[in-house]
Amino acid sequence: MKDPREARRSRVVVGDGWDLLTRIEGPRDLDRLSPEQLDQLAAEIRSFLVDAVSKTGGHLGPNLGVVELTIALHRVFDSPRDKVLWDTGHQSYVHKLLTGRQDFSRLKMKGGLSGYPARAESDHDCIENSHASTVLGWADGLAKANEVLRKDDHVVAVIGDGALTGGMAWEALNNIAAAKDRPLVIVVNDNERSYAPTIGGLANHLATLRTTDGYERFLARGKDILGRTPVVGKPLYETLHGAKKGLKDFIAPQGMFEDLGLKYVGPIDGHDIEALESALARAKRFGGPVIVHCLTEKGRGYQPALQDEADRFHAVGKIHPDTGLPIASSGLDWTSVFGEEMVKLGAEREDIVAITAAMLQPVGLDRFAKAYPDRVYDVGIAEQHGAVSAAGLATGGVHPVFAVYATFLNRAFDQVLMDVALHNCGVTFVLDRAGITGTDGASHNGMWDMSILQVVPGLRIAAPRDADQVRAQLREAVAVDDAPTVVRFSKGAVGPSVKAVGRVGGMDVLRRPDADRPDVLLVSVGALAPMCLEIADLLDAQGISTTVVDPRWVKPVDEALPPLAERHRVVVTVEDNSRVGGVGSAVAQALRDAGVDMPLRDFGIPPRFLDHASRKEVMAEIGLTAPDIARQVTGLVAKLDGGSARAADPEVEPVRD
Amino acid sequence: MKDPREARRSRVVVGDGWDLLTRIEGPRDLDRLSPEQLDQLAAEIRSFLVDAVSKTGGHLGPNLGVVELTIALHRVFDSPRDKVLWDTGHQSYVHKLLTGRQDFSRLKMKGGLSGYPARAESDHDCIENSHASTVLGWADGLAKANEVLRKDDHVVAVIGDGALTGGMAWEALNNIAAAKDRPLVIVVNDNERSYAPTIGGLANHLATLRTTDGYERFLARGKDILGRTPVVGKPLYETLHGAKKGLKDFIAPQGMFEDLGLKYVGPIDGHDIEALESALARAKRFGGPVIVHCLTEKGRGYQPALQDEADRFHAVGKIHPDTGLPIASSGLDWTSVFGEEMVKLGAEREDIVAITAAMLQPVGLDRFAKAYPDRVYDVGIAEQHGAVSAAGLATGGVHPVFAVYATFLNRAFDQVLMDVALHNCGVTFVLDRAGITGTDGASHNGMWDMSILQVVPGLRIAAPRDADQVRAQLREAVAVDDAPTVVRFSKGAVGPSVKAVGRVGGMDVLRRPDADRPDVLLVSVGALAPMCLEIADLLDAQGISTTVVDPRWVKPVDEALPPLAERHRVVVTVEDNSRVGGVGSAVAQALRDAGVDMPLRDFGIPPRFLDHASRKEVMAEIGLTAPDIARQVTGLVAKLDGGSARAADPEVEPVRD
Repeated sequence: MKDPREARRSRVVVGDGWDLLTRIEGPRDLDRLSPEQLDQLAAEIRSFLVDAVSKTGGHLGPNLGVVELTIALHRVFDSPRDKVLWDTGHQSYVHKLLTGRQDFSRLKMKGGLSGYPARAESDHDCIENSHASTVLGWADGLAKANEVLRKDDHVVAVIGDGALTGGMAWEALNNIAAAKDRPLVIVVNDNERSYAPTIGGLANHLATLRTTDGYERFLARGKDILGRTPVVGKPLYETLHGAKKGLKDFIAPQGMFEDLGLKYVGPIDGHDIEALESALARAKRFGGPVIVHCLTEKGRGYQPALQDEADRFHAVGKIHPDTGLPIASSGLDWTSVFGEEMVKLGAEREDIVAITAAMLQPVGLDRFAKAYPDRVYDVGIAEQHGAVSAAGLATGGVHPVFAVYATFLNRAFDQVLMDVALHNCGVTFVLDRAGITGTDGASHNGMWDMSILQVVPGLRIAAPRDADQVRAQLREAVAVDDAPTVVRFSKGAVGPSVKAVGRVGGMDVLRRPDADRPDVLLVSVGALAPMCLEIADLLDAQGISTTVVDPRWVKPVDEALPPLAERHRVVVTVEDNSRVGGVGSAVAQALRDAGVDMPLRDFGIPPRFLDHASRKEVMAEIGLTAPDIARQVTGLVAKLDGGSARAADPEVEPVRD
Repeated sequence: MKDPREARRSRVVVGDGWDLLTRIEGPRDLDRLSPEQLDQLAAEIRSFLVDAVSKTGGHLGPNLGVVELTIALHRVFDSPRDKVLWDTGHQSYVHKLLTGRQDFSRLKMKGGLSGYPARAESDHDCIENSHASTVLGWADGLAKANEVLRKDDHVVAVIGDGALTGGMAWEALNNIAAAKDRPLVIVVNDNERSYAPTIGGLANHLATLRTTDGYERFLARGKDILGRTPVVGKPLYETLHGAKKGLKDFIAPQGMFEDLGLKYVGPIDGHDIEALESALARAKRFGGPVIVHCLTEKGRGYQPALQDEADRFHAVGKIHPDTGLPIASSGLDWTSVFGEEMVKLGAEREDIVAITAAMLQPVGLDRFAKAYPDRVYDVGIAEQHGAVSAAGLATGGVHPVFAVYATFLNRAFDQVLMDVALHNCGVTFVLDRAGITGTDGASHNGMWDMSILQVVPGLRIAAPRDADQVRAQLREAVAVDDAPTVVRFSKGAVGPSVKAVGRVGGMDVLRRPDADRPDVLLVSVGALAPMCLEIADLLDAQGISTTVVDPRWVKPVDEALPPLAERHRVVVTVEDNSRVGGVGSAVAQALRDAGVDMPLRDFGIPPRFLDHASRKEVMAEIGLTAPDIARQVTGLVAKLDGGSARAADPEVEPVRD
């Protein structure tokens, strides 16, 4: 059977006005709409999304794919009493529109709507993180709580086919399947892509389900038996339950899900609201765990997205709404510098292979993959497997480079420690989007890596400060074949080169002090080098003589650092990472271990979750700016100069600009 | 069909001498043995294992179950050229016996054999960590490396049915299935238990496979068609390949594995060496990924193990070999104290639920489970799911207590951070076996938790010092309903109560100084309180006046600590955790943040992987003893008293005992 998406693609209408949409203040306003009005509403939502997201940037493709599904969910379930959960919450824009949030003008900006569900925005949002594959575990927990507390609320979890490749999803399915009487509805939103096309055995299995005749039979029976009446409130389950044979056909275990003991409904045309409602209503009444398999089309209704093989409309910056072309072209970014150097390394060393967790293009490995298709592995949304298979690859004699967003490496901490490091494997982890990323909010900031990785024995961390250093340190990293190495860099445009004026041990001196006995040793980490030079200028203006060094490799702490520190009065560290347990703490410990007891101040990200806003706004808010830091250091030096230690308030020290 | 294990149970012979075994110096010595000799060898190995492990303690049940499987693997594959990989390496004792390691007299002791594979012991060992579910990922990586380097070595991975419940196994299967032409043999060692009986949908699926008639047919055909001739070197695959129908029956996709596109052979009687060899040889020649499903009996041949429902013979201490009864009964241990208090809490609060990852008895939740069977969840070997479902449970209105070995929480770091903490969930993590555990070696020490958890916003960590504090702090933890709490304690016997002599802020003062202006503030963490009191005595004997405080809650650092520290000359922290980023670093940062710049020394576990030895031996080796620490602190104080800072060598400072 042909994929049902093909047939329906041409019939999509994108509406011009948003008359119906603007009258929806909450899910219950959907109840009074006719089938024709629902189709009109879907068209209006698509029009709204293209218009709004093209102005602000955001996740476009995934939301265009779930318009009808979201409408159907909110007609069948009673949110917020029933919990409607979105895996990888970037597919929740339509949900926001239907739950009282239609001002998208400041999407992902400070004070505007989050790009993910957000409990602060609405009672309809329950989970707000955007790491994938979590939703089934949440749903299992919520369903168990309902059982313990004897509540009859419903829990429905929407998960993409891509996210099913994550181990958490498997662990959850295995647990959910074990409780036959605990109600839980799992909607598999199958668009055949995670970010890129979903790979692996699971994808093949889903493809098989899609092309069985079950779908065709479902459509036929759904229309003949149930008619076109909206199904909410109708005793469909009871009817079907009476006719055992019908039930067995409709809610029947299939394939893999059958083996786990999960009931299966589908596949359903994910753009047919009535078919969706019919399936969801039956699933809701089933009384146990059930999977509803929906076929959707990512980017539906928007030609630029549908025609783009590279899935660049998964998430976009500001674009022209008609053409989908970016409005502002960005300059050279960290990711591209890495990606280009990987292609060169691939040519020089046949033993270098690359790994991505479903993010080939976003982490810059697309060019490597094109050049060396046999040496790149997309493991799916499966960071654990990325890391452990890298250990196997290294032990087998090649050098893997696993490029991954910094925040997602948290998923593989145990594998980095117990598989890669314990086994002395030469694996290079390239952490993209490290530090404050800003607009994607709390779960996307890469602010944890330089803390948790500090404990990993033997592991070395490079924090390159500019494009030249990315290239150089990547080469240094892949030259290490008996221990894990990490190269971490920021999101977005890479700044200008920052030249070293000297070298101490393995550290680059970026600025020499103008005094024989300087006051401050400023330790600059990675991309913060320009800010550190600015801090030094501000301190200089206060008569505080400052040395700036970039350790380049921040773990282990360079042996030359304590003796260098001793020639100063104060050490200051500045890093784009949690203050807790980061480079500052490591430097402080290295000083203690060397018997160098001197004042140190460590600046970084405070230990709390950061709201979405631009990187610059976030840094200003947390005081990670040159004037803020200079002011505090000035206060400390004044205290050492004899000011009253306890009375000195760094906040009121004047700073000359 | 009846489980084939039943029929064979009575026929097992446990040999008396080890004549054959002692003549096996390597796997190739197996090639010359007749079928009868192989059966005799298996009996000798069982006898040896019961004799040896009853003297030293160790993992008994799992190894008794894989005797024939290990023999067959080493006859069919050519280790170490072919890689034979053991998941959760405690099932590798037989493998050790067949690869030149038969001195079990110091098993798990310092200088003796490791309880897991160990690269330092043998080239036949490739991976040595004991966190479960990793082996398929390793195998995928090794197979990929073989492909890149164009090697035709084989990779065979042995994984238990319990470990298949882990998400890593799923991620790996999904990837392995995607490459149809990359050879890899997966042996599922199905004994229906992980530690406890395996639960969940997967277990049900495996049970179904066991009872299909495929097994019966396999046995019949295997004996009729292939005869009883050993199959190594015979062109069985070619023969079968010629007869397509035969092949289809023999290497046929089944159920879940079929859906993933993995070839499936089985189920095989895991105690029939010839059947095993036949299946493994075909799998080896298949040229793609293939699963061989073996049914084994944990504890086979040893009546005390077979008759024990609670699976206490999974891992044992010293036992009487005939009865299986423990030789030394242990006193009150940390786990029991926790387990008993949980039962009380369960009676007082109906909203308290418990979670375990396949370790109900080892973490002390068995009594809670008996008392409140509807409020305990065994999620399988699935720490990620344990944590994320806990977030769901908490959000749903109950208070989950997830009891887990400290080292295994590393698997759930991202879920603790992004699901539990970001969502302000009141979840209590109880970390058993925290700190140095010793004899299980590098991967079982719980030395990471107090470092990596420091970065988690809002999370609070309790380190109770004795049984009273376990009870009290557990109660304080479950009273927190808007943030994650952690209660971490050691392995084994709990020491005597250590009474507080005072209170400063939330901290217990364990010892008051004998001077108005004391020298040292000693911060004692958890079970190290008695050692810290001993250190104080040693310092006192040197004329160094010392205060000892136990912060009880080590995260966040008590606000009363910096002002208290300021009344001393030196701060010393002592913790049973990695020195890197642990409590010492947190205290140091808190002092800096309060503007208290004074010398601090942080004692803990050095940042390296620790070889197996007793806890006491490990602590002596790393200098985590009262005399070692007292000596270093004495040196520091001498330096502050005006000794030459750089010349002072703490190593040669005298210590009065």
